[in-house]
Amino acid sequence: MHKNQGPVYYNDYLKLDSFLDCQQPLSRKHADPENPEAHDETLFIVVHQAYELWFKQILHDLNSVMAIFSKPQVADNEFGFIIQRLDRITKIQEMLLSYLGILETMTPMDFLEFRSLLVPASGFQSTQFREIEIKLGLNTNNRESIDREFFMGRLTEKDRDKLAALENIPSLLKLVEAWLERMPFTATNNFNFWEEYKKTITHILKGDADTIHANMANLSEADKKMQLENLRMTQENFDSLFNTEEHHKIVEAGKRKLSQKAMLNALFIALYRDEPMLAMPYQMFSAMMDIDENFTTWRYRHALLAQRMLGSKIGTGGSSGHQYLKKAADNNRVFMDLFNLSTFLVPRSQLPAIPSEVRQKLNFNA
Amino acid sequence: MHKNQGPVYYNDYLKLDSFLDCQQPLSRKHADPENPEAHDETLFIVVHQAYELWFKQILHDLNSVMAIFSKPQVADNEFGFIIQRLDRITKIQEMLLSYLGILETMTPMDFLEFRSLLVPASGFQSTQFREIEIKLGLNTNNRESIDREFFMGRLTEKDRDKLAALENIPSLLKLVEAWLERMPFTATNNFNFWEEYKKTITHILKGDADTIHANMANLSEADKKMQLENLRMTQENFDSLFNTEEHHKIVEAGKRKLSQKAMLNALFIALYRDEPMLAMPYQMFSAMMDIDENFTTWRYRHALLAQRMLGSKIGTGGSSGHQYLKKAADNNRVFMDLFNLSTFLVPRSQLPAIPSEVRQKLNFNA
Amino acid sequence: MHKNQGPVYYNDYLKLDSFLDCQQPLSRKHADPENPEAHDETLFIVVHQAYELWFKQILHDLNSVMAIFSKPQVADNEFGFIIQRLDRITKIQEMLLSYLGILETMTPMDFLEFRSLLVPASGFQSTQFREIEIKLGLNTNNRESIDREFFMGRLTEKDRDKLAALENIPSLLKLVEAWLERMPFTATNNFNFWEEYKKTITHILKGDADTIHANMANLSEADKKMQLENLRMTQENFDSLFNTEEHHKIVEAGKRKLSQKAMLNALFIALYRDEPMLAMPYQMFSAMMDIDENFTTWRYRHALLAQRMLGSKIGTGGSSGHQYLKKAADNNRVFMDLFNLSTFLVPRSQLPAIPSEVRQKLNFNA
Amino acid sequence: MHKNQGPVYYNDYLKLDSFLDCQQPLSRKHADPENPEAHDETLFIVVHQAYELWFKQILHDLNSVMAIFSKPQVADNEFGFIIQRLDRITKIQEMLLSYLGILETMTPMDFLEFRSLLVPASGFQSTQFREIEIKLGLNTNNRESIDREFFMGRLTEKDRDKLAALENIPSLLKLVEAWLERMPFTATNNFNFWEEYKKTITHILKGDADTIHANMANLSEADKKMQLENLRMTQENFDSLFNTEEHHKIVEAGKRKLSQKAMLNALFIALYRDEPMLAMPYQMFSAMMDIDENFTTWRYRHALLAQRMLGSKIGTGGSSGHQYLKKAADNNRVFMDLFNLSTFLVPRSQLPAIPSEVRQKLNFNA
Repeated sequence: MHKNQGPVYYNDYLKLDSFLDCQQPLSRKHADPENPEAHDETLFIVVHQAYELWFKQILHDLNSVMAIFSKPQVADNEFGFIIQRLDRITKIQEMLLSYLGILETMTPMDFLEFRSLLVPASGFQSTQFREIEIKLGLNTNNRESIDREFFMGRLTEKDRDKLAALENIPSLLKLVEAWLERMPFTATNNFNFWEEYKKTITHILKGDADTIHANMANLSEADKKMQLENLRMTQENFDSLFNTEEHHKIVEAGKRKLSQKAMLNALFIALYRDEPMLAMPYQMFSAMMDIDENFTTWRYRHALLAQRMLGSKIGTGGSSGHQYLKKAADNNRVFMDLFNLSTFLVPRSQLPAIPSEVRQKLNFNA
Repeated sequence: MHKNQGPVYYNDYLKLDSFLDCQQPLSRKHADPENPEAHDETLFIVVHQAYELWFKQILHDLNSVMAIFSKPQVADNEFGFIIQRLDRITKIQEMLLSYLGILETMTPMDFLEFRSLLVPASGFQSTQFREIEIKLGLNTNNRESIDREFFMGRLTEKDRDKLAALENIPSLLKLVEAWLERMPFTATNNFNFWEEYKKTITHILKGDADTIHANMANLSEADKKMQLENLRMTQENFDSLFNTEEHHKIVEAGKRKLSQKAMLNALFIALYRDEPMLAMPYQMFSAMMDIDENFTTWRYRHALLAQRMLGSKIGTGGSSGHQYLKKAADNNRVFMDLFNLSTFLVPRSQLPAIPSEVRQKLNFNA
Repeated sequence: MHKNQGPVYYNDYLKLDSFLDCQQPLSRKHADPENPEAHDETLFIVVHQAYELWFKQILHDLNSVMAIFSKPQVADNEFGFIIQRLDRITKIQEMLLSYLGILETMTPMDFLEFRSLLVPASGFQSTQFREIEIKLGLNTNNRESIDREFFMGRLTEKDRDKLAALENIPSLLKLVEAWLERMPFTATNNFNFWEEYKKTITHILKGDADTIHANMANLSEADKKMQLENLRMTQENFDSLFNTEEHHKIVEAGKRKLSQKAMLNALFIALYRDEPMLAMPYQMFSAMMDIDENFTTWRYRHALLAQRMLGSKIGTGGSSGHQYLKKAADNNRVFMDLFNLSTFLVPRSQLPAIPSEVRQKLNFNA
Repeated sequence: MHKNQGPVYYNDYLKLDSFLDCQQPLSRKHADPENPEAHDETLFIVVHQAYELWFKQILHDLNSVMAIFSKPQVADNEFGFIIQRLDRITKIQEMLLSYLGILETMTPMDFLEFRSLLVPASGFQSTQFREIEIKLGLNTNNRESIDREFFMGRLTEKDRDKLAALENIPSLLKLVEAWLERMPFTATNNFNFWEEYKKTITHILKGDADTIHANMANLSEADKKMQLENLRMTQENFDSLFNTEEHHKIVEAGKRKLSQKAMLNALFIALYRDEPMLAMPYQMFSAMMDIDENFTTWRYRHALLAQRMLGSKIGTGGSSGHQYLKKAADNNRVFMDLFNLSTFLVPRSQLPAIPSEVRQKLNFNA
């Protein structure tokens, strides 16, 4: 236990003198009798600072989870911390969503009072938010080129360099991929797991096809076409799972990020998450999907707010904010592959049995 | 006051015997030793019934607001109720968003246990949700044809007819448009309000252009092009506001819904919302934008959930749910014109003064 | 409009270099090989700083509302701002409630890692929170003596003096009381409003009594006694409303804070909130009750968190946190009188009619 | 997998015809020209029905968790389901809290329009809510006698009998207590765990005492007294943990519910939750505390709402609602013992080491 180092005062511990001196509205600094301080600029500053404060916390937890996965071996007793910290990130994100509703108590007219003073500053310049994105697993190759130019062009050289450097270290996505690739269970000598599994999915897919055909009579031409196309895609998806070459093509096309091996082991976890050893890794997957969903939703809601504040005006940073943001919401997904695992699931009752030698390893000694 | 009609028992008042008998999982009905009841089907039913219960409440409040606007004249003392009920709808919507998080406690594997039993039922068949959409102001002409076919094809003839009939009565959007068109203030004889306003925006737009040109040096070619295009669009937007023919074209193209007259009077409210008589109408606009934002966000989050549950599988109703839903989120906006009002706002300090004869009418007698 | 003062960079505008340098865990400063940094101390600091940041915002909005009420006359067009800013405070409070859930992702064991370093710092030393309480209307006379000693004893002299000085300026409660006392409508010469009202409540109270007596047969002795006592209290409450001396006694006993005149005019607003001029004042009452409820709920939830973290251990500041906090939740209500207005309401259908000369004044000119 | 049983229609699957026919406002039934339907009675019904619907879901999940614990042995692969379902209950509770905010959009005046029609129905008559309370672990012996009379007196004989019968089956609290008592780890022959632990806490308690005495100079007499009393209580608490007789007295006094053996094993889990086998049981404790906190907060918020609606009037069921509810919030805690575990925790760095033979059992085979 740390030794107590002398009496601590709340105000000093939190460095409130400096901390609460950082809210300096430009409309106060440049106020004159004709142009008084804009009351709501304080809200604007507070909301953005509060975001940055919580981004720092998210990075603190994210870094610690990445540190655990950076070691050659993840100890079983570290999964508790991984879950706790990823769950915390999701709770923080949910709370951050409500900041948008608070910011919307400022009407567009109130915003206009100080908007011109901010040019060309823009929320796109938040390097902490970029750092989170990059560390989760969004990198240059995932961002479309226009996007990349758009952001990078707005940063100082120092900030740009800092972010570029981050893209060279393995992201959480890459670290978890490596961990998944190391997972031993599906590779056991006499465990022909994937063969059993393939039989099952062949059966399921046939069921889906039957369903569609049974409903054909009631469908419009357009609808019919859509459904058949869908079925074809699903079959292709399944094929790709076991076809190394196909899988590679999908990765090249930017539609999948995990390696084939990682993907299959992730699927194993999703299918057998009831086994004690896979329970917490599955909780981790859930938390990762939550994180993805929350940032995606936030970007989308942010786009709606930008439109509400500006209509079709340009943003302070020169961006047509809301259209950009909506596109970003869809494109900047990190853990899409985990969402897409559902494509490959089968009902518990049809799950191939795990051989007892493997099963034993997934359980406790006691 | 209503006369008391004899003792009332909680259970009877709420008709709980019938109400709590409506949750009948199909996997319970068809259970056998090999296929036991799927535990989470109850959650699936409860979530959907809870949605329908609240949709009924939303319709109850929406109908009452529409009834107020259906009268030839909206009394001033009815605005309190309008605000109260629209605000209630937004609070209900915010709560309904959290249902998605509750539904996600069911994992995709849990869903698979009973999914096949539901075919081809689909949430798209919720006639109450469609009724809300239509009554707010989404009608056939607003929906793209594929969308229309898609939904309608899934309904019974009775339900289809019911919804079709609703499209023939004036929606909230239409009723509010008519109310806005009746607003007298900007039409006063010697109130050349719009001329004054035009001078102001010409000045503002020049400022925006200067801003862009000042930043040109730092921008990439792509960015520069985007911004200039944006500025051009903004100017066109302003022009369209006063050019009846241009305005009509925009409406025809489906990019605006309100008539020119209604649009201008809505703008007047947004600009002068500090005047006592315009304060509550402006609160109404805010509530309407909140309602739009909340449904839009809900559709978007719903799309993410669908993907999480199904991956790229087809939905139980035969839809490729998540892609469809994402598109719907963007297309099915009702009060877009209110969001776009922000395009036309000017800072308070540059607002043209309202002539005292008009101003007096916007105030209390006391 | 403020003139643009040269390009602004996001990072500089928000003073992020200083701002993000204020999170300095003591367990990092005093770390050694045996006692590494406690991972969750950062969360502890971030949560508390985020509270302080939002407290600053709450004070910013609260001060502006108090400034409006400090003028001899509140202009009708200022009510929009009053509502907007009080509503914003309630939205901020609702969000702040979720901080407790985030803090609870830190387990009691995690807290123990750095708890000893904080002694005797305590959240009770937050002067901004005290400032909010005092400005809303909690002052020395409202706090019980033990409470006062408890807090004040933990502050530096400077902080103590600062808070003491705040108690000498009129709180929001006092300012609104004065505004209510100035309200002219119920004092009109030939408007015997309160006489009409008294007739109505006599009728209502009789109904309540009948209800109780009709149910007597089914009640236990204890229950019967409780209800009759309740009825007696309700009658006393009504009497006190018009009996200056009785009212004074209740205020002296600390059970009511508003003057008799203010109380009656507040009741008038609650009863006739449909009248255009009273609609926004009633919205203000609702916001004030929300603010009270939110802080009360927050104190209560805070007490549960303290118990969860510490069990029956003492707090870092030497307080038996959770028991204290629970008591504080109940005692530190500010706008209790607004809640208690409901005691005196009557159904709309039984409301005395307002004379047309008064009614006209409550409406718009148009 | 269940076999598809023929096409299913959304409306039929959810039994919407019956379900949406259960909202029948009494003020509609008894409406006449003078007393029209009260608009907000629908909201009142919808909120209460929505509560009952979710209570049914909570019971569904609670029952399934109780079924798992009712077996002689809880399988390791069932903990995933336990956590999933308890977490779901907490998410449902958090959402249910927001119903109070929705109900508050009905003003006290709106409530008065139909309140008299409901007498003497009361939310206290919700048998599902009572069922949840009893199944969690609140039984007659935990409720104070007035409380018991108060509720039971309001129920029909049938409902009363149903609830009384439930009190005879083991609650979740009792089932988990039995499971904890069966836990083998701390009972290992040569594992003198508790002796090691006692040494540690003696050391810690001395530290707490030193802290208090070091701060004595700055404290008021009242404060000093409170802190010393607190310290004494803490010491007593620790003593009671190992003193069977003392422990028994505390249970008799209603201040503890778990047996001594269960309490010690629960403490073991809290202290060593990093060990893989204890990680999910600890998550279960967290979920149980969340459930307790959420119901407690809900009761408290409910009390504030009752006061806001009724002031000091009696409730429709004849109760002085808000005072009763506040008291209930504090008294009706179920998992208090888990909160109080924190009293007995020690920092990780001071934890006694677990012997390797025990530790191995807490880990996976792999």
